[in-house]
Amino acid sequence: MGGSEARRPKAGRPPDRQAGRAVRQAALQLMREKGYAGVSIAAIAARAGVARQTLYNRWPTKADLVLDAVFEETGRNAPALPGGAPPEGQAGLEAFLLQVLGHLQQDGDPLRALIAAAQHDPVFRDALRARFVLPRERIVTDLLIRAQARGEIAAHRDPGLLSQLVHGIFWYRLLNGQELDAALAREIAAEIFGR
Amino acid sequence: MGGSEARRPKAGRPPDRQAGRAVRQAALQLMREKGYAGVSIAAIAARAGVARQTLYNRWPTKADLVLDAVFEETGRNAPALPGGAPPEGQAGLEAFLLQVLGHLQQDGDPLRALIAAAQHDPVFRDALRARFVLPRERIVTDLLIRAQARGEIAAHRDPGLLSQLVHGIFWYRLLNGQELDAALAREIAAEIFGR
Repeated sequence: MGGSEARRPKAGRPPDRQAGRAVRQAALQLMREKGYAGVSIAAIAARAGVARQTLYNRWPTKADLVLDAVFEETGRNAPALPGGAPPEGQAGLEAFLLQVLGHLQQDGDPLRALIAAAQHDPVFRDALRARFVLPRERIVTDLLIRAQARGEIAAHRDPGLLSQLVHGIFWYRLLNGQELDAALAREIAAEIFGR
Repeated sequence: MGGSEARRPKAGRPPDRQAGRAVRQAALQLMREKGYAGVSIAAIAARAGVARQTLYNRWPTKADLVLDAVFEETGRNAPALPGGAPPEGQAGLEAFLLQVLGHLQQDGDPLRALIAAAQHDPVFRDALRARFVLPRERIVTDLLIRAQARGEIAAHRDPGLLSQLVHGIFWYRLLNGQELDAALAREIAAEIFGR
């Protein structure tokens, strides 16, 4: 991205968006170098070459900024099919898990570091849970609720519990250094839908 | 335990067993005070009042000693019914999860700290996995294989995947600061056995 960006004229691009990108990149670099506990708002501001107050205006806490930096690209949306409509049911769950896999292949190590940091810092654990964990848990729960309404999942099963089982095995394997691949995504979706 | 122990005569108790207990208690105290990264074999030896070489003779690495200290009481055995035979099937899985719950109520915080430490230390992650994670995963896998042989679980389902789903949701909830209670153990066992 850097090359073509540099050649483009700067007019028309809001300066705070440029600063935002520089800040997120600085935060991500520092996270990788020093870990969450070793990063400060002051160090991120210095690395990005912006005033510290600029950061506080936009991100109230270090947790907000680091979460934003690590998960900027991942979004919270369900994956879409080429036609635009997101897949549903077992195929939809598999597509969601493949999307998570792609993310973990790039940012699995920062995510492991963030989960580790959250164990020593309850404020950060709450931020991670509210901004990262729960939205993703909700995507799967909602998908399973819709599947249940169509009769694809038995009425007595709890979509919230199933969603936590699905996310749980991803965390468990990530934190144990085990592979997460497309075959696993397919097996999990098949197990949840009982096929 | 301390009070009645103190009054018992020391004769007949092997001295290295006493030293072992003092060392494990020192390791556990220091883990709680300083976290895994802040603990050293030298500090544990000093706190326990034993020679450093004694520790190295028994525990080749800090990881071995800390794992031994934190998980000494938990064992690796399946829970037993009053009659002596361990329960099987859905009741057996629920009993195993209740046993894990009891352990986490006491040592959930050290376990969270150990999982966090493992994310920064691949040697320790391998030790944690070999000595703590895999034996527990195996207990559930074996229980599910036996259940499958009795026809309680459909032949196409993978007991290894199911075991990781079960342990995964425990890790996920533990690391997210969510409650782990008897109702959850019952719901997980019911979901796995489809009842």
